[in-house]
Amino acid sequence: MAESDTASGPGMRFVEIIDVGPRDGLQNEPDIVPTDTKLRLIQALVDAGVTQVQAASFVHPKWVPQMADAEAVSAGLPSAPAVRFSALIPNLKGFERACRAGYKEVDFVLSASESFNLRNLNSTIAASLQTLAEVMAAARERGISVRVDVSTCFHCPFEGRIDAAAVLPIVARVIESGAERVGLCDTDGMAFPDQVTALIEALEREGILPVERMILHVHDTYGRGLVNVFAGLTSGIRAFDCSVGGLGGCPFSPGASGNVATEDVVALLDGLDYTSGITFDRLLDAASLAQGLSARPYQGHLLRASGRN
Amino acid sequence: MAESDTASGPGMRFVEIIDVGPRDGLQNEPDIVPTDTKLRLIQALVDAGVTQVQAASFVHPKWVPQMADAEAVSAGLPSAPAVRFSALIPNLKGFERACRAGYKEVDFVLSASESFNLRNLNSTIAASLQTLAEVMAAARERGISVRVDVSTCFHCPFEGRIDAAAVLPIVARVIESGAERVGLCDTDGMAFPDQVTALIEALEREGILPVERMILHVHDTYGRGLVNVFAGLTSGIRAFDCSVGGLGGCPFSPGASGNVATEDVVALLDGLDYTSGITFDRLLDAASLAQGLSARPYQGHLLRASGRN
Repeated sequence: MAESDTASGPGMRFVEIIDVGPRDGLQNEPDIVPTDTKLRLIQALVDAGVTQVQAASFVHPKWVPQMADAEAVSAGLPSAPAVRFSALIPNLKGFERACRAGYKEVDFVLSASESFNLRNLNSTIAASLQTLAEVMAAARERGISVRVDVSTCFHCPFEGRIDAAAVLPIVARVIESGAERVGLCDTDGMAFPDQVTALIEALEREGILPVERMILHVHDTYGRGLVNVFAGLTSGIRAFDCSVGGLGGCPFSPGASGNVATEDVVALLDGLDYTSGITFDRLLDAASLAQGLSARPYQGHLLRASGRN
Repeated sequence: MAESDTASGPGMRFVEIIDVGPRDGLQNEPDIVPTDTKLRLIQALVDAGVTQVQAASFVHPKWVPQMADAEAVSAGLPSAPAVRFSALIPNLKGFERACRAGYKEVDFVLSASESFNLRNLNSTIAASLQTLAEVMAAARERGISVRVDVSTCFHCPFEGRIDAAAVLPIVARVIESGAERVGLCDTDGMAFPDQVTALIEALEREGILPVERMILHVHDTYGRGLVNVFAGLTSGIRAFDCSVGGLGGCPFSPGASGNVATEDVVALLDGLDYTSGITFDRLLDAASLAQGLSARPYQGHLLRASGRN
């Protein structure tokens, strides 16, 4: 284990689980899930003790019809003071919608790969950084916290392996813009644990971003979800995106399975004596509900291993 | 990475893959696979470049009817000088059968957990060690190499978590008996990577067994297959049991999925710049064949991620 583990006080054993299932998960389902059902899933996550949920995406419904009810979902969010809800925004217009819907925290996304940025966001990276600057200016004015996700940090379905050297200047620009936290995203699940370690260490070594402000976002497409989480954990990351029931995918990666399943990550954390504040049995209830919403076979492990799928 | 990685010469980057699918995998299938089909699977593994295959088990067919054709499988093994074939034996009678079938290497199994040993082998650990002594005496006489698998090294479905302290004296007795290598087996997939690291380090520190003589055998039931392989790799292990197509399970662990899939492990090794001598595309052919023999949904990842399942 890294020194940060053995040397840490009890506080350092707390790991923040950010469930992105209601957004990253459900937007990849072929069928549109009704608003009430989304809210039941979010309630189940809150009941399980998940303290941060990415609840919706304010993108144009033409691009992501599954998120067309973002306002309705947001209006129906449970009253849970201990839980932080966030929403994905692609641009200033999405930011305005998220603000009107009451979010205090928004997630902006761009890519470390030019090809992926063009295909996924229809924008160059330079243009995305310009959009980010506009969003940041508005966010500062309103006291909204902005997290920026850098997708394809390790591998791009179009460009192949992405080296840390290509990611560092983008994260640097993102941080200069005023982002509070950065999500290091393994968009297509192709990351290897040595890459995860190398990127985290390089970001720290170059003074670009302390590990406390990093979030790791991995997919389990190739079975490497937990090994990459473990690499992040060992390098000091204490915030992870996961998706209940392993919901999700990558529209540009055929066969790609979902985000690493929240229940798989929490079981790993429990066994390694980290705490997340999550009640495991209730989380399995939420995973079971999530799986019921999915058109695909179960992509996680713990629900099946516990005989509940 | 551990010092053994960064300090190693090119030779240390070679990892031995031992495919146990034809034995540990197929014996857990509800249907009996015909001998010819087993041999086709073994041939596919050989064609892929797998250098060690656990081909059969010489247990009484009353207990494991799926292995009743062990002699026929052994007689039909491909002529492949670069490949080592081994067979599981439960006792002296099984050893004699394996010898007659021409094996130069046999695998004996006992457990680190008394309850599991009783249920799985109908024997106390002490009695199993006595049986091992008899097998070893016969093996020495005939120049047969014996590998001993210690099952439930990290967790037992009946006794729960197993501490390294309970495993050390058993491995010590196994080594005293003359075993060449020891398989550290996570029988029900419940191991955590810190346990893997701790057991390897304790065995080395206590002078019981050098890492060169350890084999790690993990299951992917809880999605921790690769994280445990990675922990073993980082601690210096260079030999892993895996099962093509993720075949296998644990008869005492309901819902348990199979051994970690060979194709998932090889993809991880490739990405981390280890070599196994395996041609990945051919391995996927074998995984596809293996999956066709299984009554269960695919338990690995790479076949699905490559759009072939």
